[in-house]
Amino acid sequence: MKAEIIAVGSEMLTPDHFDTNSLFITEKLNEAGCEVHLKTVVGDNEKDIVDVLRSGLRRSELIILSGGLGPTEDDLTRTSVAAVLHREIRIHPALVEALQRRFAGRGYSMPKINERQAQVIDGARVLENPNGTAPGLWLEEGKVGIALLPGPPRELKPMVERHILPWVRERTGGRRLAGRIFHITGLTESEVDSRVAPVYREYPQVQTIILANPGHIALRMGRWVERGEQVADLEQLAGRIQEALGDAIFSSARETLEEVVGRMLLESGQTLAIAESCTSGMIGMRVTRVPGSSRYFLGGVMCYSNDVKHRICGVPAQLLEDHGAVCAQVAEALAGGVRNALGASIGLSVTGIAGPDGGTSEKPVGLVFVGIADGSRTTHLKRIVPGDRETIRERTTCFALSSLRRFLISGRT
Amino acid sequence: MKAEIIAVGSEMLTPDHFDTNSLFITEKLNEAGCEVHLKTVVGDNEKDIVDVLRSGLRRSELIILSGGLGPTEDDLTRTSVAAVLHREIRIHPALVEALQRRFAGRGYSMPKINERQAQVIDGARVLENPNGTAPGLWLEEGKVGIALLPGPPRELKPMVERHILPWVRERTGGRRLAGRIFHITGLTESEVDSRVAPVYREYPQVQTIILANPGHIALRMGRWVERGEQVADLEQLAGRIQEALGDAIFSSARETLEEVVGRMLLESGQTLAIAESCTSGMIGMRVTRVPGSSRYFLGGVMCYSNDVKHRICGVPAQLLEDHGAVCAQVAEALAGGVRNALGASIGLSVTGIAGPDGGTSEKPVGLVFVGIADGSRTTHLKRIVPGDRETIRERTTCFALSSLRRFLISGRT
Repeated sequence: MKAEIIAVGSEMLTPDHFDTNSLFITEKLNEAGCEVHLKTVVGDNEKDIVDVLRSGLRRSELIILSGGLGPTEDDLTRTSVAAVLHREIRIHPALVEALQRRFAGRGYSMPKINERQAQVIDGARVLENPNGTAPGLWLEEGKVGIALLPGPPRELKPMVERHILPWVRERTGGRRLAGRIFHITGLTESEVDSRVAPVYREYPQVQTIILANPGHIALRMGRWVERGEQVADLEQLAGRIQEALGDAIFSSARETLEEVVGRMLLESGQTLAIAESCTSGMIGMRVTRVPGSSRYFLGGVMCYSNDVKHRICGVPAQLLEDHGAVCAQVAEALAGGVRNALGASIGLSVTGIAGPDGGTSEKPVGLVFVGIADGSRTTHLKRIVPGDRETIRERTTCFALSSLRRFLISGRT
Repeated sequence: MKAEIIAVGSEMLTPDHFDTNSLFITEKLNEAGCEVHLKTVVGDNEKDIVDVLRSGLRRSELIILSGGLGPTEDDLTRTSVAAVLHREIRIHPALVEALQRRFAGRGYSMPKINERQAQVIDGARVLENPNGTAPGLWLEEGKVGIALLPGPPRELKPMVERHILPWVRERTGGRRLAGRIFHITGLTESEVDSRVAPVYREYPQVQTIILANPGHIALRMGRWVERGEQVADLEQLAGRIQEALGDAIFSSARETLEEVVGRMLLESGQTLAIAESCTSGMIGMRVTRVPGSSRYFLGGVMCYSNDVKHRICGVPAQLLEDHGAVCAQVAEALAGGVRNALGASIGLSVTGIAGPDGGTSEKPVGLVFVGIADGSRTTHLKRIVPGDRETIRERTTCFALSSLRRFLISGRT
C-alpha cells in the first residue's frame, strides 16, 4: 500500500520550521505494512492544497493531511478537500455542543469562530480528538482513504494510532517492513561505513542506511516482507554487522544511550551524581528524560564558575589556578568531588571549552575532558570535539554518557 | 516569484530523516525576494519525480531539485527531468575528463559507473560543483527555471548561492520579504490570538502567523515589498500588536528568552544560581546556550533527590518530610538555599511532578512551583502544566525563565 502525507501550514514553509509529524506517521505506517512514497508541504493556500490532493488521488491509496483544521480563515484543509471531492460541508450540531462543553469545562464560553471546527464534509466520519478542539475527518473516495488530522503532534499522534492504523492493517494483511537498528557510539560515520560496507553490499535486497547524529550513529537495515515470509537474510546481515562493530553498538533496540546507562546503573545497584561545566545541565537533562531515573540518579552540580567547582565539588582552588578549569586533573577532581558531595556511588564530570570564545592554541575550542570516579577507580578521557557551541555540547554529552557506559562495562567484566 | 523545492531520495522517506536543504534554500530565496510555496520529498522513483515535476511546471516559476545526481542506478533525477521536458541526454566528454582528473588527483582511477555524472540534458548549462563529483544542471523551459543540484548540503549550499540566487535577484529586482517577529511568553496561543486577531484582520495584506512552541509563542508578520516600497502598514501593525500584548512580548528580535534574561542580569549587574528538581538541568542548559553567559551565571544544582535538596541547597529535612518536595515552601527554600550555597545575587528554583508517575489528586502530574529569591524578596509561582513528561519539563523551563524575567522587570521599576 502506497501512502502520501500532505502537511498544511505556511509556517512550515519558513526557514526555521519543518514538518515533524510526517516522521512519526511514516514510522507507524511502515510498521503496519504501508509505504510512504511522497510527502508534500503546502502553505495555507487553497489552490496548492487542491492541486496536491488531486495528484494524490491518482497516485496513492492513502492520503494523510495534517494541519489547517483550526478555527480561523487561514485554516483551509476542510474546504479544499470538499472542493476536490465535490462534496458539501455542513456544521454538525452535535459537534458544536461537544466543543461548547469542552470550552465550558475550562470555564470559557466557546468563541463563535470555533463553530468552523464542527464543519463536516458529506460522507466523512468524524475522528475524535481527545487532546484538542479540532476533530479529524475520515473519507473514502473510490479506493483511496483520506484522513484530515490536526497539526499539533500531541493531538495528531493518538489519532493516527487509533483511527488510521487499523484501516491500514486490514488492507496490508500482515505485510510489514522488517527492520533492525543498531545505535553506535564512539566511531565516526566513515569508520562505521568502512567496517560494514563490505558486509552489507552482499545483501542488496536489504536497504541499509547509516544515519549520523551529533555523537551518535544509527545504522538501519530494512526489507519489506510478506505475511509468513522468513527474514533469515536480514538476521544474518545484522549478526555480521554486530560482529564487525562489537561493543561500539550500545543498543540494538529503541533504547537510548541514557536508558542503557540507567539500566546498567539499576542492575548494578549503583547511584550517579554529575558535575557539568561546559554542558551545564545537558547530561542531567538527558539522564532524567528517562521515567524512573530517580532510582539511580541523585542529582548534580552545574559548576559553571570556578568558584562553584571549588565550593560545591571541592576542587582545590590551587589546582584551578595552576592548570585552569579545563584539564584532566580538574575533570577527575570534579568527578570525585561531586560523588562525595552528593553521596553517590559514581561521579561523572565534564569540563571543556564550548566556544565560540575562550580557546587558545594549547586548549582549543572543542577540547573536553570527562572524569569518572567510583571510590576505587578514578579516570578521565580527553577529546577534541568538532562543531559550533551547541553541537560541541551535544557531542560532549554523548561522549560523557558513552564513557560512563564503557566504565560500567569494564567494571562488570 | 514562486518557487518550489523537490527533494529526491528514499532516505528522506524514512522515519528519522528529513530534508534539511529546503530550510537553507528557503532562507536564501526569501532574502532574494522569492517565495517558496511548496516542498515535496520523493523517493528514488522516476514515476513520482516525473509526476511532481509536471505539476511544478504548471504552478511555479522556479523549481529546485536536490539529490538523485549520484552515479548509481538509483539516481534518477537527470533521466526524469529529461523525460518530462522531452529532451535527450548526452555524455559530455569534457565532463568525463574533469571527473577523471578529480579521481586521479586523489590517486584513484574513475570507476566506469561515474560516467553517468557527466550526462547533460540537451540545452542545460552545467553548474560546477567544487565540493563533489556530481555537477549540477540548469535549464529553462518557457519561463520556468529548473535547477538540478546534488543532495549533500556542503555541495548544494555554495551552488545555490553562486548559480541560483543571481538568476532570482535579476527577476525579483529588489523585491523582498519584509518581516517583524514578536516572541511571547506567559500567554496561551488562543489568548494571544484573541488579543491580536482584531488588529491583524485590519491588515490582510500582511501575513500574520502565530507559532506555538511549548511555553513560548512566536508571532510573525510578513509582507512582500517591491524595491523602494514603504512598509508603513507593517510597522503600524507591529506597533498596535505590541500595544495589545504589552510586556508579554519578551523579544522583538531574534533574541531568545534566555538571551533576554541574560541581558537583564548583565545590565543590572546581578548573578544567577539555579536549583532544578524536575527539569534537572534543562534551565541551566538553556541559560548557558548563550555565549558569554559565564558573566552572570554561576551555576546550579540538579537537586533530583530530596537528600540533595537538603544537603546542597539547605532545605530543612522537616519541611520536605511535612510537605513533600513539590510545594511552595520548598520552591522558596530551594531558591534561597541555592542562592546562598553558590553566592549568587538571585536564586531561581523549580520543583514539580513531570510524570508519568508520582501524581496524586492533590498534586497531579504537571504541578510545578517556581521559586525566586534575591536576598530582600522571596517569592513563588504555581502552575499546572499540560503535556507528557518531556513537554512538561520544557514548559516548566519556559515558565521559570519567564517568571525570572518578570521578577527582574518588577525589581527594575
